[in-house]
Amino acid sequence: MALTTTPGTRQRLLDIAVRLFARHSFAGTSLQMIADELGVTKAAVYHHFHSREELLNAVIQPLVEQLQTIVAAAETQRSRHARAEQMLTGYADLVVRNQGLMGVLGGDPGVIDMLRAGDLARLTDRQLSLLAEVNPGPGGLVKAAMVLAGIAGAAGHGLVGVDDDTLREHLIEGGRRTLGLRPPRSPVPLQGRRV
Amino acid sequence: MALTTTPGTRQRLLDIAVRLFARHSFAGTSLQMIADELGVTKAAVYHHFHSREELLNAVIQPLVEQLQTIVAAAETQRSRHARAEQMLTGYADLVVRNQGLMGVLGGDPGVIDMLRAGDLARLTDRQLSLLAEVNPGPGGLVKAAMVLAGIAGAAGHGLVGVDDDTLREHLIEGGRRTLGLRPPRSPVPLQGRRV
Repeated sequence: MALTTTPGTRQRLLDIAVRLFARHSFAGTSLQMIADELGVTKAAVYHHFHSREELLNAVIQPLVEQLQTIVAAAETQRSRHARAEQMLTGYADLVVRNQGLMGVLGGDPGVIDMLRAGDLARLTDRQLSLLAEVNPGPGGLVKAAMVLAGIAGAAGHGLVGVDDDTLREHLIEGGRRTLGLRPPRSPVPLQGRRV
Repeated sequence: MALTTTPGTRQRLLDIAVRLFARHSFAGTSLQMIADELGVTKAAVYHHFHSREELLNAVIQPLVEQLQTIVAAAETQRSRHARAEQMLTGYADLVVRNQGLMGVLGGDPGVIDMLRAGDLARLTDRQLSLLAEVNPGPGGLVKAAMVLAGIAGAAGHGLVGVDDDTLREHLIEGGRRTLGLRPPRSPVPLQGRRV
């Protein structure tokens, strides 16, 4: 009965929402189910979020903003290879740091619909372009899409016995191989030599 | 009002179900919605399928059976490379032939839950093993998972201007690159030479 809106309630609502989206999909989860799971009234949930769309947005927005920063930074690189390399490593790192969420939301049609209507569709196109331009023609586009889906899917798969650093390292290596990118010889060249 | 159970009704039900699963997710689609979309009563739907789970099963079962055949055939190959190569090409072909469905169902939590309870979980593990064993250690597993998710995701992405043959070719090439597989020199060697 009591509206338990302690400072932690908002975060607990988000955590529970993600868990229920994972179990029942976005479309299959109601505010009432979230309230029941948290043991509060629907009014208490409503105090924080007026719809499951609002809840999903609050979950996803920080991720979208981080991705925006990564894409924009990659786009400032001067060569095609440097742009693809930075997009690849930045994306793999983002995905590994948020792998629970990626596994949950990555393929939910309800989630994808909502994202398509938002900023993420254009952002995904920019990601695809950055990875595709190292291989001309339709093959570049197919491989770029493979790398994006492969990184998100492999990280969301919950591979047993693979820690985060190992996962990141092999996602990046797999992505480089798929795109035909040579690994950078050193992050900061010691000499400004040109070959 | 009339129970229009013509021979085509069952197939039309399946087609409409897939379309609605894509739009609202599996959990967000009811038999009533499917009946409304087809313009029949819920009883007419019920005549063919007693639940959305039964409907989903009817959609997915042919795919699972084809995948079972592909995995079993790949497992009979004598070398690790030949097993991975056959798994890769067979899977890419299956996915391209069913790319609409893959895009729809590939990441829906409700669908995945149902599949996990069925034969597909063990089948996915066998696929992963076939692709992972060409690269020892955790890196092999990560790359195998990338290839499976990458193929399904890229095919489901609906890339503009890429026809089926081009898509298949580049999915296979991308998968070979990720796994470090050399393409077979010719499908049927003209001479039984050994090097």
